Amino acid sequence: MAQQAIESAQDPQALAEAVAEAMWSRDHAAQALGIRIESVAPGKSSLLMDVRQEMLNGHNICHGGMIFTLADTAFAYACNAYNQTTVASACGIDFLAPARKGETLRAVATERSLAGRTGVYDITVETLEGRQIALFRGKSYRIAGEVIAGLQHATTPTT
Amino acid sequence: MAQQAIESAQDPQALAEAVAEAMWSRDHAAQALGIRIESVAPGKSSLLMDVRQEMLNGHNICHGGMIFTLADTAFAYACNAYNQTTVASACGIDFLAPARKGETLRAVATERSLAGRTGVYDITVETLEGRQIALFRGKSYRIAGEVIAGLQHATTPTT
Amino acid sequence: MAQQAIESAQDPQALAEAVAEAMWSRDHAAQALGIRIESVAPGKSSLLMDVRQEMLNGHNICHGGMIFTLADTAFAYACNAYNQTTVASACGIDFLAPARKGETLRAVATERSLAGRTGVYDITVETLEGRQIALFRGKSYRIAGEVIAGLQHATTPTT
Amino acid sequence: MAQQAIESAQDPQALAEAVAEAMWSRDHAAQALGIRIESVAPGKSSLLMDVRQEMLNGHNICHGGMIFTLADTAFAYACNAYNQTTVASACGIDFLAPARKGETLRAVATERSLAGRTGVYDITVETLEGRQIALFRGKSYRIAGEVIAGLQHATTPTT
Repeated sequence: MAQQAIESAQDPQALAEAVAEAMWSRDHAAQALGIRIESVAPGKSSLLMDVRQEMLNGHNICHGGMIFTLADTAFAYACNAYNQTTVASACGIDFLAPARKGETLRAVATERSLAGRTGVYDITVETLEGRQIALFRGKSYRIAGEVIAGLQHATTPTT
Repeated sequence: MAQQAIESAQDPQALAEAVAEAMWSRDHAAQALGIRIESVAPGKSSLLMDVRQEMLNGHNICHGGMIFTLADTAFAYACNAYNQTTVASACGIDFLAPARKGETLRAVATERSLAGRTGVYDITVETLEGRQIALFRGKSYRIAGEVIAGLQHATTPTT
Repeated sequence: MAQQAIESAQDPQALAEAVAEAMWSRDHAAQALGIRIESVAPGKSSLLMDVRQEMLNGHNICHGGMIFTLADTAFAYACNAYNQTTVASACGIDFLAPARKGETLRAVATERSLAGRTGVYDITVETLEGRQIALFRGKSYRIAGEVIAGLQHATTPTT
Repeated sequence: MAQQAIESAQDPQALAEAVAEAMWSRDHAAQALGIRIESVAPGKSSLLMDVRQEMLNGHNICHGGMIFTLADTAFAYACNAYNQTTVASACGIDFLAPARKGETLRAVATERSLAGRTGVYDITVETLEGRQIALFRGKSYRIAGEVIAGLQHATTPTT
């Protein structure tokens, strides 16, 4: 295991960044939608996504499912930042205003509660100009496993 | 206006089908994800989607946002079936089990309430074998306009 | 332990009724609001509540919290019917129409999903005439313990 | 109309306080539960409630319906603070920890969005010691009418 990974296991911020990088590398859906990580931290994340032609619905505005997907992805990066595999158990979203082709959306995730296996996270979705698009609240559930397997159990450098 | 469209304006089932066809033709997001309409009716719809590689998240299961998008699309086709433009104002989803690459998901939308401008719709997402994947509930809000403009006001054939 | 209790442990319907009776006897909130059990079954319940003067809010209609409480109580009786202590982890409610003083409300709970420790239940609230008042969806979480302690482990009559 | 009311119509903070006082005087449910207004402001409120014996459920903890009612009441005082009659259209609550007899709960409501007829409000419920009990999110809908009828239209003192 690389020295960098070892350090990650001891520094919460470095750990959050290492986990996000690992998740990203295998997150086909986020990659396909062009979602970009702006920042991550323990229990937090900020992601960007451009509204593209293929994200529009039959009303010619960004499909609610694409807005949800951006928010849900921000949620995933925030709640997995401790390197304990965590999934969404339930989510709710309020759509406030339509998003249009060419706009860039920012989703910012914040941890509101974390106790035992469950957490609650709030995610706001806004345009870069700060126009509110949606409010998302997600409930997380920690399952067995780690995002980067074995990281926290490493005690000695292996390289 | 074609004879078929005129008939659609008078028959709720034909109207629902005409609206679905019109929405589908301009629903870039649903098309990009390979979502297919199995059936529609007034206040109802049934849609299919195959879980593809680019729908997987960092845990190697179908991204919750893709499951939401399928359900939200079924919701849209059900609540717009009366040809009055209707958008989602809020949605909630409970994730019950992971969906895997290669599985085909079916979302079935049912109207639970419709009064004034607002409605409530329940959407179930299951595999073709009937394994429950998610339960979705959406609140709709009717705005100005029609999906197929002018349809219900047509009174004489124009072709 | 009474013969009746022993039988309850072996018959799901009798168990649901015994659990409801036990919960009711110590459910101060449901008693204070005059909530009445109409029927219970495994994963199901039907409860009644009269809208009284002290349930009205500042708009002179039944307080949403009282409608929620009725629905949440129906949820509790349905999800505890297996005699495994189960609590609400999250609930959502859509208010469809106001309820007025003197009306009797019926809440009917139905199990939509139950897997592992978590379940999803739908509760409808209507007047006796069938006017829809609210739609409630609750997520349950099974914790340690039984509503009637020791019931299922009883194998020999003790009286 | 009293001089005080005239001033209320011009000062948002005074208006919020006058509306809260008027709502409270006819809010039978809040009074019956002993809910107390700690503070109000435009789009905000803070309320207190003691967990009493008659609020306990069959698990001997505060009934979720009572916690919801406190949060929903805080929501109502926040979203009606502009003196435009506003009702809850949908609410969601996440229960984080049980509340016990004798504890005093504080619900703090904050406006997250307000556009046109609809708003979104977040309400936190905590004990006085700051232990999180529940997170509530409510969607408001403004209907016709004013809480204090005619207040904003008053232009000349009448006393």
